[in-house]
Amino acid sequence: MNTLTTTDLTAALQWRYATKSFDATKKIPAATLEALISALHLSPSSFGLQPWKFFVIENSDLRDQLRLQSWNQPQVTDASHLIVLAAKETITTPDIHDWIQCLASTQGTPIEQLAPLQGMITQFTGAMSIDDMQQWNSRQVYIALGQLMTSAAVMGVDSCPLEGISAAAYDQILSLDGSGYRTLVACALGYRSEHDKYATAPKARFPLEKVVSVIA
Amino acid sequence: MNTLTTTDLTAALQWRYATKSFDATKKIPAATLEALISALHLSPSSFGLQPWKFFVIENSDLRDQLRLQSWNQPQVTDASHLIVLAAKETITTPDIHDWIQCLASTQGTPIEQLAPLQGMITQFTGAMSIDDMQQWNSRQVYIALGQLMTSAAVMGVDSCPLEGISAAAYDQILSLDGSGYRTLVACALGYRSEHDKYATAPKARFPLEKVVSVIA
Repeated sequence: MNTLTTTDLTAALQWRYATKSFDATKKIPAATLEALISALHLSPSSFGLQPWKFFVIENSDLRDQLRLQSWNQPQVTDASHLIVLAAKETITTPDIHDWIQCLASTQGTPIEQLAPLQGMITQFTGAMSIDDMQQWNSRQVYIALGQLMTSAAVMGVDSCPLEGISAAAYDQILSLDGSGYRTLVACALGYRSEHDKYATAPKARFPLEKVVSVIA
Repeated sequence: MNTLTTTDLTAALQWRYATKSFDATKKIPAATLEALISALHLSPSSFGLQPWKFFVIENSDLRDQLRLQSWNQPQVTDASHLIVLAAKETITTPDIHDWIQCLASTQGTPIEQLAPLQGMITQFTGAMSIDDMQQWNSRQVYIALGQLMTSAAVMGVDSCPLEGISAAAYDQILSLDGSGYRTLVACALGYRSEHDKYATAPKARFPLEKVVSVIA
């Protein structure tokens, strides 16, 4: 497997920033987009439940509508692609069953052998309120958001996470009402404009000692 | 900047799995650990507020104690390193002030120029309940978790996210009570044991169509 050196990884993560101005003429090549979609698809989640749905919005009419529900942020329409990340509202018994089925068929495991895992997931999720479950699912979606932005950076693709959106309006525009999924956050992907003044601003982070403690 | 090809990225993310059994004799080299810590430090967060704290636990006594609070999962003690990810409980006016100061000094911007941003963050966080804030901060921590696991994978380092931990017991062991931070999740990092049967199991994910919709 070809890996990235420590220096190259850090350089890519230093290079990454919340891109404010995208070059609207630059499109993500098909193979790169496919790798980004794979990164979402392969994201880790608790118990592997994948409590999410990802919308890759290419349609420009839709993006115009979404921009109006995003404080008019130009990234929504100018970036090559817009991803909307939605979280599942609950985890139901059929959801758990679907996952166990998927696991059994992918791994060629008799389904009976997965009964203890199914029991564990059922017990764990059963102890949660609807609100806890929604929050738990939402956190999983943010793992996918992290995996997406890091994956983009190591391939030299720019990104901008967008929390400042009207999730309820996104749900309406994307017909999510009643689907069991709710919009949580969006992420614009593409290539920075050469005029984005934020591209060259020094990256600001708290001093390392404030956020990392090594306990030897 | 050296980037990863689409094929190499997908291969790395396919290679990654929730490692159940680590080779306790293999340690992450210092430069690699430093790059992983940088990945945490450089993680994106909403408004850049970095509402988190990361503990890199090398101490074996502590890890023995933490393992007892983690359903006795061997990853806690056998992996090269254990990272505990904690979320800030709130975002206070002084927190926002600290961040604006950091931004101003890093970027050489007069602090008055950042007053509109400071106002926006104050308004946004001021509209949240304590519970909303804690959930919001927790989601940010999961971006860092995603960035950490993806970064590990592209460098050929194994990881296992650990949600099945007693966060309250972790808080006690790490003396977090009263610190303003709370344990949320942990992540073991190191190298898979050659005996981990999960390493060769086919990766199970729902069919792509179930989780990704391209709207052209």
